[in-house]
Amino acid sequence: MSSPLSVSLSATALATSTAVGSSPFEPFGSVALVGKPQANGIAELLGKLAAEIAATGRKVVFEAGTAVALEIQGYPIAPPETLGSQVEVAVVLGGDGTMLGIGRHLAPAGVPLIGVNLGRLGFMTDISLAEMPTVLGAMLDGNYERENRSLLQGCVLRDGAQIFSATALNDVVVNRTSPGGMVELMVTVDGRFMYYQRSDGLIMATPTGSTAYALAAGGPILHPEVGGIVLVPVAPHALSNRPIVLLQDVEVVIELGGERDACVNFDMQSLASLIPGDRVIVRRSPHTATFLHPQGTSYFATLRKKLHWHEYPSA
Amino acid sequence: MSSPLSVSLSATALATSTAVGSSPFEPFGSVALVGKPQANGIAELLGKLAAEIAATGRKVVFEAGTAVALEIQGYPIAPPETLGSQVEVAVVLGGDGTMLGIGRHLAPAGVPLIGVNLGRLGFMTDISLAEMPTVLGAMLDGNYERENRSLLQGCVLRDGAQIFSATALNDVVVNRTSPGGMVELMVTVDGRFMYYQRSDGLIMATPTGSTAYALAAGGPILHPEVGGIVLVPVAPHALSNRPIVLLQDVEVVIELGGERDACVNFDMQSLASLIPGDRVIVRRSPHTATFLHPQGTSYFATLRKKLHWHEYPSA
Amino acid sequence: MSSPLSVSLSATALATSTAVGSSPFEPFGSVALVGKPQANGIAELLGKLAAEIAATGRKVVFEAGTAVALEIQGYPIAPPETLGSQVEVAVVLGGDGTMLGIGRHLAPAGVPLIGVNLGRLGFMTDISLAEMPTVLGAMLDGNYERENRSLLQGCVLRDGAQIFSATALNDVVVNRTSPGGMVELMVTVDGRFMYYQRSDGLIMATPTGSTAYALAAGGPILHPEVGGIVLVPVAPHALSNRPIVLLQDVEVVIELGGERDACVNFDMQSLASLIPGDRVIVRRSPHTATFLHPQGTSYFATLRKKLHWHEYPSA
Amino acid sequence: MSSPLSVSLSATALATSTAVGSSPFEPFGSVALVGKPQANGIAELLGKLAAEIAATGRKVVFEAGTAVALEIQGYPIAPPETLGSQVEVAVVLGGDGTMLGIGRHLAPAGVPLIGVNLGRLGFMTDISLAEMPTVLGAMLDGNYERENRSLLQGCVLRDGAQIFSATALNDVVVNRTSPGGMVELMVTVDGRFMYYQRSDGLIMATPTGSTAYALAAGGPILHPEVGGIVLVPVAPHALSNRPIVLLQDVEVVIELGGERDACVNFDMQSLASLIPGDRVIVRRSPHTATFLHPQGTSYFATLRKKLHWHEYPSA
Repeated sequence: MSSPLSVSLSATALATSTAVGSSPFEPFGSVALVGKPQANGIAELLGKLAAEIAATGRKVVFEAGTAVALEIQGYPIAPPETLGSQVEVAVVLGGDGTMLGIGRHLAPAGVPLIGVNLGRLGFMTDISLAEMPTVLGAMLDGNYERENRSLLQGCVLRDGAQIFSATALNDVVVNRTSPGGMVELMVTVDGRFMYYQRSDGLIMATPTGSTAYALAAGGPILHPEVGGIVLVPVAPHALSNRPIVLLQDVEVVIELGGERDACVNFDMQSLASLIPGDRVIVRRSPHTATFLHPQGTSYFATLRKKLHWHEYPSA
Repeated sequence: MSSPLSVSLSATALATSTAVGSSPFEPFGSVALVGKPQANGIAELLGKLAAEIAATGRKVVFEAGTAVALEIQGYPIAPPETLGSQVEVAVVLGGDGTMLGIGRHLAPAGVPLIGVNLGRLGFMTDISLAEMPTVLGAMLDGNYERENRSLLQGCVLRDGAQIFSATALNDVVVNRTSPGGMVELMVTVDGRFMYYQRSDGLIMATPTGSTAYALAAGGPILHPEVGGIVLVPVAPHALSNRPIVLLQDVEVVIELGGERDACVNFDMQSLASLIPGDRVIVRRSPHTATFLHPQGTSYFATLRKKLHWHEYPSA
Repeated sequence: MSSPLSVSLSATALATSTAVGSSPFEPFGSVALVGKPQANGIAELLGKLAAEIAATGRKVVFEAGTAVALEIQGYPIAPPETLGSQVEVAVVLGGDGTMLGIGRHLAPAGVPLIGVNLGRLGFMTDISLAEMPTVLGAMLDGNYERENRSLLQGCVLRDGAQIFSATALNDVVVNRTSPGGMVELMVTVDGRFMYYQRSDGLIMATPTGSTAYALAAGGPILHPEVGGIVLVPVAPHALSNRPIVLLQDVEVVIELGGERDACVNFDMQSLASLIPGDRVIVRRSPHTATFLHPQGTSYFATLRKKLHWHEYPSA
Repeated sequence: MSSPLSVSLSATALATSTAVGSSPFEPFGSVALVGKPQANGIAELLGKLAAEIAATGRKVVFEAGTAVALEIQGYPIAPPETLGSQVEVAVVLGGDGTMLGIGRHLAPAGVPLIGVNLGRLGFMTDISLAEMPTVLGAMLDGNYERENRSLLQGCVLRDGAQIFSATALNDVVVNRTSPGGMVELMVTVDGRFMYYQRSDGLIMATPTGSTAYALAAGGPILHPEVGGIVLVPVAPHALSNRPIVLLQDVEVVIELGGERDACVNFDMQSLASLIPGDRVIVRRSPHTATFLHPQGTSYFATLRKKLHWHEYPSA
């Protein structure tokens, strides 16, 4: 349903925008480019973008997977794991899924991300392709707003030994795997028993993840500045169960009870199978992802647009 | 439905419990007593309690309204406004409503509260009458857990002039007053437009209030340590509207739009009428209320009990 | 926000459309016209429409309130109470509120309604002004789809005597009137106790009303063909309370308990004050309202459009 | 968690109760016994119950699986498929799952069921073990209340050919099987497109099933007399999606869109894998299950007890 990319990035637009105003932050001297390889016209678009950015005297490094899939040549490449040590900022063209993937990798190095959406506007990729030429130059010159997003890190313990670990920017989800049965979960917070829950699953989301799966399951929105995580049950057996927001510095332990297997996934991707008795330990990551937005960006405006809040004075 | 109070408070029980263990905090030397005058048998109960506390060498001061309504004599009295300057702790016998009322008054002086429930266990009055003799002495001796609860302060502006102000421990609620129509509210957060909402009303709740009216309206639970407030619409016209948790340090402005009058109330009590164009300004109070709990108290246990989470391994 | 009416109704369009196809129903020989007087340009629009309909040889009767408010002359008029005995069909220009008002009056006479929306598409006024010229002639000639909508009739008993009665096409709502307190309601169904509920209010809705206030309060959608009514609590104190769908032939009695006054309203309009002990008796009306739609109309399409179900294959 | 069965069934109790009052229905001359083999003490209990019923001159037939698993001898046995042709009523000892299983098999023969719960009270097994001796004799003598429950029948079409079919008393559920992705479903009702939905799954429930999984997912309760089915999405991506109640006589077609596999299950048991393009066709079964209840049984009382509606006049 997405149309081919047709925006032409003029060097003039970039040049012009960089000339405006005094910069609140230092300009970026090196830029990583990351793209969603399946997007229509993405190769040509990234090629032009790289050339324009290089023309401003900046170093351009391609994320290796992007470069290989799209057969882009002429620029240094680096895998996600080491990309963060080679650039000062990353420009990501794709959807929220693309941002999640690279965001987890760049968080330890503290490299911020600029997200450009190729299809429908995303929560994280909040710059449309149409406005990219207007705003990107200014942002690379230091005119932007910073927003830190917390991450979760988790592991799975079986018989006391760690058998899995991963990081999540959106959420950690324990889900049933058998189609006809619930999971049974014993949840403790900082060593204190919270509840024993039977449900389809349990979502533990960051503020970033609060507008993703957790929202579909009935959870509240957490503004990114709120230092909390939210636990949202999916189809809980106890009708009085409710989402609960906890301080982000707690340690949550989810032990699989009952007799059925289950699974845990991080950002709907990294996945581990669980058997009864397994414990999933989740706490805040020491790292944070940093998103950059054009000056004047409003989180609330994104919410209104994405959530279809059509509530203007009565027509 | 509440039965007459029949617990006898033995000085022995108080004396014994005070002898146990080393105290993590300093003992309290002066105690305010506050009661819900309508409770059955409350006069006799407070009389015995005052005598027992005085017998341990502590100063006892009665909240004036309590003393007058129950015709209690022989102790100094003070109105809620000045009670905080005369005591180090307050023991409150009643329900959550009683705690809300006195809690708002004692917050500025930093006087902590101990809540004893005379009927059904409350979220704030979490000590039952039956266990009071066992735990109260120890608490007065300094063996307790402290919990700070944030408050909201708000005012109403009409044509730029402040016409009302009040404080809330639970929530600030803007509600329709006409039975057959919605309120229309324009909400801004720190000067940024959030949404224009049509609904029965809008609840802005502290973590303390998140388990009260906001929960009935579909809001999440906020753990008391979370530094947030939650905005919960009541029966919003836009089906995709959702509760949103904001940082507690924001300033929220709710402007009444449309053509219908409305009202705003604080903790379901202090009340002001609103006309279109009025603005309700709410921010965090500089004061916090402090609740004391017996050692080993679990917030989650209270949640489970109050919310009927009956989810133990499958029967 | 609604723009002035600018559609020109050409007699040709009407004439043409009436010539198409064989009619499944008999043509209508007499037509009532009803309008929302406050709508912008409504007087001119109704005047042209009346002339065009009269030009096809049909009798045109204006609803009295409409004619008086808009100073329309040259046609017979009748108040809502007797309008049903003088026409075979009513064309209503306005919003859902306009339809509710006249629909209750025409139901006893069995006169069907055709709803044309002057602003945003409504659930009941599902013909836009733009498509009216195309479809109205055909409908008056008998090419339409019929849909019956059940009504509720209710009364209030105080000390055994009936003090109020009214009819509702959407819903009967018992609501609190005090801003800071819940209503307490004892609900029985066909003489059997269902629940004692504390809440902001209780909505009893027909399938027609299930997409109005009841939906905002968390109720399900009832397809118009379902022979049921739905009871939806607003902000119920018991978290496990849920909307319940009952057979439409039951008698529901709502008795106001507690100590606070309340009110009951029918379609958000007819209103009665309640005191503790009052009983609201609601049952299905023996009459039904009949809505006519253009051939090929889809109830589900209206739902999708009104409820913003944007769920096409992933973009 | 369930304790061993300790109720002694005295023949006297049975004999006595059967002597009371005139019977509104004919006595049953033959009785099937069905049990949940895993229940603690079930073999002894069924043995005593069979003897007592046989002692009243009735024919007793054991469901084959029950008899084999529990090594019960001395009575004729029959598999679920033919049990219905040999008895006039079935007494089921177990939980709601046991009732679902045998209920689907006995519906075609029109044999009614009496449900006795061995653990927590169920919605369908609404007679406790403690009250069984008091009420069972009377019920077998014809003193009971009848309640018909509709069933769904469904099949899966792949490339036009039927690859699976099953019956459900509770619900038909289309669910995702991949842990990290949504299903995409195109739903049509009687050939009319209703919606294209992305979610964890879609539940189509009878009134019986409305208090099971559908309720956990946010659906309404449908009284058993309501001739409807309810479609409840699980964690739908579109926030404005809502449960919808349809007339029970419709045909619902759910086509799996997108690119991910899924599964469909009937009463959480019979299961089929789905690939994109598969269509699940669901309509009302021509058969109904019949549940018998002790005289004076209240559906609402069961709801209150199971759903923890603790809402009596304020304590």
